[in-house]
Amino acid sequence: MLAPDTVSSSVALPKIKFLKQPTQQAWIDQAIAHIDTVLLDHSHCERKAAGMALKLMFRYPSYECMVRSLTALAQEELEHFELCNQWLERRGIAMAPLAAPPYGATLNAQIRRHEPDRFLDLMLVSALIEARSHERLGLLAAHLPDPDLAQFYRGLMASEARHYGIYWMLAHTYCDQAQIVPRLAELAEVESQVLATLHPEPRIHS
Amino acid sequence: MLAPDTVSSSVALPKIKFLKQPTQQAWIDQAIAHIDTVLLDHSHCERKAAGMALKLMFRYPSYECMVRSLTALAQEELEHFELCNQWLERRGIAMAPLAAPPYGATLNAQIRRHEPDRFLDLMLVSALIEARSHERLGLLAAHLPDPDLAQFYRGLMASEARHYGIYWMLAHTYCDQAQIVPRLAELAEVESQVLATLHPEPRIHS
Repeated sequence: MLAPDTVSSSVALPKIKFLKQPTQQAWIDQAIAHIDTVLLDHSHCERKAAGMALKLMFRYPSYECMVRSLTALAQEELEHFELCNQWLERRGIAMAPLAAPPYGATLNAQIRRHEPDRFLDLMLVSALIEARSHERLGLLAAHLPDPDLAQFYRGLMASEARHYGIYWMLAHTYCDQAQIVPRLAELAEVESQVLATLHPEPRIHS
Repeated sequence: MLAPDTVSSSVALPKIKFLKQPTQQAWIDQAIAHIDTVLLDHSHCERKAAGMALKLMFRYPSYECMVRSLTALAQEELEHFELCNQWLERRGIAMAPLAAPPYGATLNAQIRRHEPDRFLDLMLVSALIEARSHERLGLLAAHLPDPDLAQFYRGLMASEARHYGIYWMLAHTYCDQAQIVPRLAELAEVESQVLATLHPEPRIHS
């Protein structure tokens, strides 16, 4: 159900059922034209994804299934972070801070403050971010002219898909089933809306 | 220079040059008598160690050598966290929050607020915590009556020793050499002082 529904042509936009709207062509053009900045931002994204998993493990230390799933997820994000950093080194790009696009802050602002709503929102926002990352890394894999870098992105795609599956599974493990799909629909609407206007600075989530 | 200076008898207290005072017998007795609580606390310590590495990676994203060393360190801490959680499961100990002993807060209070002092203190406090953890896991390995659990702790010791070596190396990579040894002496004094009175609740750092 959660597997990416990628059309057969490698240049067509992949479509992921989880997401309300697919990524527009303008993002692909921007990313390909500024791939070094996108690579640096991608490195930050992998570190942030590991940081988010750890934050959840600190906040809910008794949620055994969650803690153990996110331990494995955080390890994988750190592996990807290191792979990104190897690419930065290979291309002579210095590690440096980058201003974040509005994407993360807009989604975080949707997270309700009281339990059990907060936990559900954290799982669904994390799942949406992973689903979008999966879609966009797939687009980089399909469109990048450098075959080695394209191969690198193809290699990351499978685990990114697993990651949104993990957050989705955790929502089903811990949350009221009746609330999951309607809340996902609301959050997916916001997630697509924030990306509808291309952010001027090239980022994974611009 | 930093390798543990363990005496040959397996029941004698190991002595680590980095630390001002070795652990007292009272801690060993307390830990062995409450090993299930210590195991649960150890799980928290591994998660906190991974969290600290990530926090440093967020705070100093351009410190390439630090970021890449701590990526590997955080991955290893997460592996140990998972191993601890497998032991909790095997012994039927539920994952649960535990009140922290004064150790971490006392050491954090020593960290000066302005750079470059802050970075040096963060490296040295992290090195001291890793050195003490290494010493105490070694004591558990030497004194636990359960041979499987003792073997588990023996298995963790080598990487804990590597971890304090990493923080020590990072201090030498980024900090004024003349300040490192005198500041370590001050912090090591505080670190041993806070452990001089055994905390009544059994913890890795009680």
